[in-house]
Parts: sequence; structure tokens; C-alpha cells
Amino acid sequence: MIKTISVKTSSREEMVDIRAEVEKIVKERGIKNGVCYIYVPHTTAGVTINEGADPSVKKDILYALKKIAPPTEAYSHIEGNADSHIKATLVGSSASVFIEGGRLILGQWQSIFFCEFDGPRTRKVYIKIIKEEE
Amino acid sequence: MIKTISVKTSSREEMVDIRAEVEKIVKERGIKNGVCYIYVPHTTAGVTINEGADPSVKKDILYALKKIAPPTEAYSHIEGNADSHIKATLVGSSASVFIEGGRLILGQWQSIFFCEFDGPRTRKVYIKIIKEEE
Amino acid sequence: MIKTISVKTSSREEMVDIRAEVEKIVKERGIKNGVCYIYVPHTTAGVTINEGADPSVKKDILYALKKIAPPTEAYSHIEGNADSHIKATLVGSSASVFIEGGRLILGQWQSIFFCEFDGPRTRKVYIKIIKEEE
Repeated sequence: MIKTISVKTSSREEMVDIRAEVEKIVKERGIKNGVCYIYVPHTTAGVTINEGADPSVKKDILYALKKIAPPTEAYSHIEGNADSHIKATLVGSSASVFIEGGRLILGQWQSIFFCEFDGPRTRKVYIKIIKEEE
Repeated sequence: MIKTISVKTSSREEMVDIRAEVEKIVKERGIKNGVCYIYVPHTTAGVTINEGADPSVKKDILYALKKIAPPTEAYSHIEGNADSHIKATLVGSSASVFIEGGRLILGQWQSIFFCEFDGPRTRKVYIKIIKEEE
Repeated sequence: MIKTISVKTSSREEMVDIRAEVEKIVKERGIKNGVCYIYVPHTTAGVTINEGADPSVKKDILYALKKIAPPTEAYSHIEGNADSHIKATLVGSSASVFIEGGRLILGQWQSIFFCEFDGPRTRKVYIKIIKEEE
């Protein structure tokens, strides 16, 4: 079973905290112990786990990625989003988080972020849960 | 059960689309719903999911990685492939893709790429499928 | 079931080989075939799989990450560890390794490294094993 989260982004580069949506799916699904997979089916977006408390962390991550892959380099890909594809590979298209006692086990400061690198767009995030054998 | 894909690369840095090989293994295995893991057992190679339609995307990703880790920096590792190890960590050694209805669920533009960073060589990619409980 | 490894780091940036600890957990657990997940519940640390034989590889990876995210850029996050958060996203907070015949299936040169980016601290690494259906 795949559950889909819809994410509406509002700028070209943006990190959107989807922790609450993922937690809602985990709760509804009712699986006690297992692994929750978060998968981004786009090639100019990604998913990462990082600090959710201070919004400046997101800003700094996007800043560092822009320094690595500036939008205006002499790229081969002519659609104007070569930098977005590069960022997608650096950040990655999936994340895994443990489920224990029916709850998502994130660290104290961790949240799950959908990373938009070529917005604004309406994007999808797929969620699957694999149950751990008792 | 681990299935092995063999990949023969032809240059030092290269991204090889292995989507068809992974899909063949998923089809043969006959598991309806689950997660397919792609694992690279090498330390100077990786795996990423990105655009398969335009070959220039691969070129730009390799170009950006070379800018991050040029082959000729003052590295400590004296085998001449320190940059390859760095790229392996940035790209990652595994990827996970969902299986639903017996099919690999990739986004419209997504393919799976073996990333060679110290070729040409003959490399291995391991595939494992975990079944989702019905 | 989640098993926890405790890692005591001794510098600000450091890669600690935790392969032996993960292998011990896999052996004790006694699951023959499956996937072993390594998860870091911190936002200024990560986990990567890379060469364990030559310690200079770790040095070069940390050097490249420092070049990408120098500690003293004009970051927004004012706690002095914006670079550590950036590195956590680039390296990633989880890794997956196959288990076959009761053994962790790593490549010949591969080890599993806890990556400290804001130490020294005492850190945790979570391990979960999902059994593959026979």
C-alpha cells in the first residue's frame, strides 16, 4: 500500500516540513513496529531529515546547495534546471525512519523535509510502511 | 535472496542506467507489493535516482561532483582516487524504490543509475526485495 | 525492535567505524536474510558506507565536506553549527545493508561510519533489522 502526500511549494527552492503528514499516515496505518519509507518520485526534488526547530537551518542548507550547484553554470541540460537535478542527487530521493510502538522514531530535533529544487509546483511524496516481524 | 547485476563501465566517471535490469529482476521475482533495494558494494561508486530521458543530466551531475571533488586536490589517500571515495559518500551506496502491483514505482522521469567514479571496471550491484505484508 | 549503539566522539568532525558493533547486533539477532537499517537520530551527524582499510579516506571525505560547508560562512543559523547541519543532509541520516546467511553483506573494502559533524559528543545510532520472507 502506497499513501500519497501532496506538497504545494511556493518558490524555486524550498524545504517543506512534512513530519506531521507522515506521522498522521503512520498513526492511521496502525502498524506497531517497522520502517516507514518516504519516497519522492520527482527528479528535481528530494527528501532529507534535519532540524525542524530553527527555520534558518533550511535556509543554510539551500544556500550551501546553491553554492555547490549555481543555477547559471555552463550546464549541458538546456531546460534551465540542471542545478535542480544535481541537488536531487546530492540530497537523495528517499528517507527511512523507524516505527516503534506505533510511533515514528525521530531524534529530538529531527523533522522530515520535502526539498523543492525547481518550484513552485504541486509535488507528490509516496509513503510505504514495512512491518517488522514480531 | 540477493540478485546481482553486473555493470561494465567504460570511463573513469560514468552514470549507467540500470532501470531495465532492476525491473527485470522485480518482474521475475513476482512479489506484488514491497520495497526493492539497490545496493552498491564498492567504495568508489554509488547509486542515484534521477532523470533518464536527457543524457545531459548525467553529464551535469558528474560535472558538479568533479567541481566538488577535483581529482587533483591535496588529498591524504595516495591511490589517486580520493575524489572517487568522496563522490561515493555524497551520492550514497543504496537506493530504495517501491513495488506495487508487481511493478517498480518510479516517477515519470526517473531512472536508476549506477555511478562509476573510478572506472573503467566491471562492477556489481546487489538487489533485494522485501515483501510488504498484505 | 530497535538496538542502540553508543558512539563517543573526540573531535568536532570525525568518522567512527561502527561496522563491528553493527555486525555484533546482526549476529545476536539471528535473522538469516533481511535488511539491516542504520539510523542516526541527530541533525548534526550522519552515516555513510565507505573504505575502512585506509584511514586517509575518512580524512579526505571530511576535508571535502569542510570545503563545501566551511564553518565560518555567513550562515543564518546562529548556533555556530550551520555547517554541521548541511553536512548531515549531504551525507544522510540512514544506511541500509543486506543480511544473507546471517551475515552483513558489505563489499570487500566497505565499512559503516558514524559521521560526527559537531562533536565531541556522545551520540546514538539506532539499528533495526527487517526479515525477508523465505
